[in-house]
Amino acid sequence: MPRHICVYQEFLTDTHKAQITKTAEDCGFVPHFFTPDQTEEARACLQSCEVLYAHSPDLLRSAPASLQWYCCSFAGVDPYCSDPALFANPDCILTNSNVYGVTISEHVVMVTLMLLRRMPEYEEIISRRSWSNQLPIRSIRDNEFTILGTGDIGIHVARRMRDMGAAKIIGLNRSGCAHPDFDRIYPISDLDRILPETKILIMALPGTAETRHILNRRRIALLPADAYVINVGRGTAIEQEPLIEALNEDRIAGAALDVMEPEPLPPEHPLWSARHLILTPHVSGNMTLGYTCDRNVALFCEDLQNYAAGRPLRGFVDRQKGY
Amino acid sequence: MPRHICVYQEFLTDTHKAQITKTAEDCGFVPHFFTPDQTEEARACLQSCEVLYAHSPDLLRSAPASLQWYCCSFAGVDPYCSDPALFANPDCILTNSNVYGVTISEHVVMVTLMLLRRMPEYEEIISRRSWSNQLPIRSIRDNEFTILGTGDIGIHVARRMRDMGAAKIIGLNRSGCAHPDFDRIYPISDLDRILPETKILIMALPGTAETRHILNRRRIALLPADAYVINVGRGTAIEQEPLIEALNEDRIAGAALDVMEPEPLPPEHPLWSARHLILTPHVSGNMTLGYTCDRNVALFCEDLQNYAAGRPLRGFVDRQKGY
Repeated sequence: MPRHICVYQEFLTDTHKAQITKTAEDCGFVPHFFTPDQTEEARACLQSCEVLYAHSPDLLRSAPASLQWYCCSFAGVDPYCSDPALFANPDCILTNSNVYGVTISEHVVMVTLMLLRRMPEYEEIISRRSWSNQLPIRSIRDNEFTILGTGDIGIHVARRMRDMGAAKIIGLNRSGCAHPDFDRIYPISDLDRILPETKILIMALPGTAETRHILNRRRIALLPADAYVINVGRGTAIEQEPLIEALNEDRIAGAALDVMEPEPLPPEHPLWSARHLILTPHVSGNMTLGYTCDRNVALFCEDLQNYAAGRPLRGFVDRQKGY
Repeated sequence: MPRHICVYQEFLTDTHKAQITKTAEDCGFVPHFFTPDQTEEARACLQSCEVLYAHSPDLLRSAPASLQWYCCSFAGVDPYCSDPALFANPDCILTNSNVYGVTISEHVVMVTLMLLRRMPEYEEIISRRSWSNQLPIRSIRDNEFTILGTGDIGIHVARRMRDMGAAKIIGLNRSGCAHPDFDRIYPISDLDRILPETKILIMALPGTAETRHILNRRRIALLPADAYVINVGRGTAIEQEPLIEALNEDRIAGAALDVMEPEPLPPEHPLWSARHLILTPHVSGNMTLGYTCDRNVALFCEDLQNYAAGRPLRGFVDRQKGY
């Protein structure tokens, strides 16, 4: 009896579909492909599927109790972990797609250099058709980085900064276990001790109850006046009001936020006008880059083989922990 | 009889001065330090000096025929090569300071990522307090680079792009001789053949008669529609009018110019309003970065030891060739 996979994605090329079809057939599955304008057809098909590869809480909500595996094509799975009612089958496996390290680390390198090299100020000077080239700048070379979150994204960022000559790269995670891409890793419980020595704080944390407002008012006050904050994880990790105050009162040097709360920002939100801030509309890991899409499909196919063989899945997420 | 060095620089710290003094004394020289607000004192002192470490055509013009070595603290020495009348001593040695590779390569990485990741468009969206995150982006990873000029700057750029996963890095220079940081190096005479296959053209050429308008109207037309042009060498290397036309008519994807002609741009110049263009006011190699200043002084001290010992100087510039 054939086993069925519902694939509900916008980004797939014909090559991707052929790759999924080949892998599925080799494993005894039949894939069914739908795009977001075919939601009703996808919903109907899903009723007889064992696997769903998508990024849609709505579609997941209508999956039957016979769904065994939901492969989310995004890295951030907080919407799926915070709402158990999404899964009709309480034992349904959840995996995410940790394939965003390359593109998000390029975003981090870009905004880090824009902050260190005073690009927002130079852009303002140029927009007035004015000229000045004497703003003091800083370099990634010989600089120090504190990376909060040492998953796929944190590791890729650490490698980029190392390649560009960073002097010191500190990581913080739950375990505090060493990792070759970091000079030192400390447990997150050491954060209060690390923040006063931090020059560039890069946040790449999943959205969980524990990470919510991890950079709160008290901790923002621990940062030195020449510190920069970059967030590419989840907007909920930062208490935004005190961050805005610190930026507007020159108590930190600057920030770059690709994630914020809420998204999109409402028109009157004070983040729009905060000083020394580079805002981007959650683009650091977007799915418009071919490389990211290729890796996404490759990871799904790899885990489909693992799933069919009864092996552990690479993208496995503990729905209780949220990562 | 003591031999004298006139040092006329703005950026020196006390540590730099101590380092120069120690090296000079070890070599039998006495250094005299002046800042740009002491031009007259510097001019008077210079009359009995054998060496000048500065970046000032004006001061050089008043040097005596007994000046043996002019060490320019900048990399670009076109003002000194184009005007032989600057040197009272026709045999005066000219050296430049090839210490800008680190900072200029960071600038190139920044603007490359800004172009590939559509940052000017996202900045425009954010400035309207709007939201969109679906512009197709590209990556340095797996991308291809054509680097015109393979000196200190070109080599540092090649290394940065290689570290970030570039698929192919082509260099062009006069000799066409191979270099380990490039996949292939071709002679500049192959430029017409290379341009139609170029995805990202990075120009880091000295300002000489040969490089003037090397990217002219005919060659700009050879670039594919998805090509980007980045110039951190000299503004004279690009024929600006056809570049502006190509940008405004979407015949190339974008450009980032840190150098242009003239500098500063006059208020009505069409470059200010060209589309898909990131303009910066000649900041990629500015002297506000401590690392660059440290390397500048270290290179002068090294060449001072070479000079005192009668060895070839590392920064030697052929005044006829201009580099």
